Amino acid sequence: MTETVVVGTTTWGTTLALLLARNGVETTLLSRTQVERDTFLRDGENRRFLPGFTFPAALSISCDCREAMRNVSLVVIAVPAVTMRRNLAGICDHIPHEAVVLSATKGLEPESSKRMSQVLEEALPSHLHGKLCALSGPNLALEIAQGKYTSTVIASRNRDAASLAQRLLMSPVFRVYTSSDVVGVELGGALKNIIALGAGMADGMEAGDNGKAAFICRGLAEITRLGVACGASPLTFAGLAGLGDLIATCASRLSRNRYVGEQIARGRSLKEVLASMKNVAEGVPTTASALKMARSLNIEMPITEAIDSVLSQGVNPREAIARLMVRPPKPEWDDVG
Amino acid sequence: MTETVVVGTTTWGTTLALLLARNGVETTLLSRTQVERDTFLRDGENRRFLPGFTFPAALSISCDCREAMRNVSLVVIAVPAVTMRRNLAGICDHIPHEAVVLSATKGLEPESSKRMSQVLEEALPSHLHGKLCALSGPNLALEIAQGKYTSTVIASRNRDAASLAQRLLMSPVFRVYTSSDVVGVELGGALKNIIALGAGMADGMEAGDNGKAAFICRGLAEITRLGVACGASPLTFAGLAGLGDLIATCASRLSRNRYVGEQIARGRSLKEVLASMKNVAEGVPTTASALKMARSLNIEMPITEAIDSVLSQGVNPREAIARLMVRPPKPEWDDVG
Repeated sequence: MTETVVVGTTTWGTTLALLLARNGVETTLLSRTQVERDTFLRDGENRRFLPGFTFPAALSISCDCREAMRNVSLVVIAVPAVTMRRNLAGICDHIPHEAVVLSATKGLEPESSKRMSQVLEEALPSHLHGKLCALSGPNLALEIAQGKYTSTVIASRNRDAASLAQRLLMSPVFRVYTSSDVVGVELGGALKNIIALGAGMADGMEAGDNGKAAFICRGLAEITRLGVACGASPLTFAGLAGLGDLIATCASRLSRNRYVGEQIARGRSLKEVLASMKNVAEGVPTTASALKMARSLNIEMPITEAIDSVLSQGVNPREAIARLMVRPPKPEWDDVG
Repeated sequence: MTETVVVGTTTWGTTLALLLARNGVETTLLSRTQVERDTFLRDGENRRFLPGFTFPAALSISCDCREAMRNVSLVVIAVPAVTMRRNLAGICDHIPHEAVVLSATKGLEPESSKRMSQVLEEALPSHLHGKLCALSGPNLALEIAQGKYTSTVIASRNRDAASLAQRLLMSPVFRVYTSSDVVGVELGGALKNIIALGAGMADGMEAGDNGKAAFICRGLAEITRLGVACGASPLTFAGLAGLGDLIATCASRLSRNRYVGEQIARGRSLKEVLASMKNVAEGVPTTASALKMARSLNIEMPITEAIDSVLSQGVNPREAIARLMVRPPKPEWDDVG
């Protein structure tokens, strides 16, 4: 019998399972098929998504959802946003009544533009709604697997639920803060990818550190405006799940969204870049979703508009940035929502 | 007769003079000696501090302060913090009564820990106090000289003074925002160097992008707390003069403070690193000043304490970071001042 189940066997889910098990928390990584389970057991690692990181003793592998979920106190869900609803349909009947459900997925549901906790509330039975949590922050999975210092935020409207998840995940190299701002933590993780696309464009056109820093900074102001209009706290966007994640994503060679922006600025088409990638760049659909939200809420988002003009209308990134630079200047914060 | 005088012939002053003159603003760069003036005129550039950037036609060189200041509407001061008071003594009698005086110096006065505008108020005649401005932001000088996209903030309690400086400095590659928060803009530029020292340490110990991002993020929260206690607006710290400058400094190979931290984490002593540098690393004295201020205002600054323990007590950076990671976790924003 284990204490925790992790749903999602790509890099992120595997990393979180590793983290829990290294803390001595009895953890089951729920594999999708019997074949996958057997491969994991044979290899003693997830060779496809996280090669080189041996499963700790406290990590079990199972493809029997009912059995794996029995009596667990925490269910961690780390599946792509696009498959969240489908995954929940397969597990929702097996989650114990008292369990805390923690979403570690960054991104919005395509089409609906819903946050993951909104999808959870729609897909899970109501007795689980009171203990939903969301995790986000500057959390490049590979670095966590390598045991490098990392901090994150777990948000919940239920303080006890957040504390339970915090207690299980916290370690001397993984620092967990708690927050009550679920909307902010989820939107921070999703919206920052828009700015990462733009920061990648700045990299691709060799704009320099001044320009990239200003871009990140004004970009954060803009996604904060949208987040606040959606009910988030501005402090969350100034914290690990907003600013922190944004800095890590915009700096890292590992970020897919940054990479897409960089390649476009070097002259490749969006279609060509996306076709060459194994993984989804969540920022592309998120840019369109954010613009839709901004228009309906009457929020000004000039940077997001500029990125969208590059992505969806093929505007040259240099031209898009040049347009941003010559808008009539204002006091720095007069336009804060 | 020129419109603007720039005081300060190191890299930063020369860059600002270039920027103004490229905008077609008739500008005088005030040189310290006749020999320096003659060298500038002969070379057509500042070969020592900004080699390779030819003086534009609108840039004059003078070592006659009285003559240079005659009828100018803007005096830009870009001298090291440590020599600010001495420099002002030499020019204060020549500044026209109606001129706007803009400080572009980042850093606090050593010993007194005063901001540059406080030093200006003490050193300049009172009829000039109403039009003082401070400029700060992610402004690596070399990139500005190269004509790369840059944004900055000019703060003043006098909106017309800030607008005049904005109008003269703004260009399609140099975007100027205005602000009324002089304290915040000045403290952002000074305090961010503390965090840059720590970010350099993270680089030197190869802590990774997660850890560095979390460090920058929590560091910003901490210097914001101090700034707010000193009367600054938290929004300024979330803006170009706080966050923006912090991101550029922590990312750039050009930052001296980041470099100092990196070298210490690689095992060199502070004394040895400082002795090997031509320029001052303002973050070192600023760390001590900030701690003094924090203690007198009863503000908690664990990151600044950790950096100070490395700088002044020779604590190993790894040990200092490890101590930060295991402090009892709190809700992310409960400790905001």
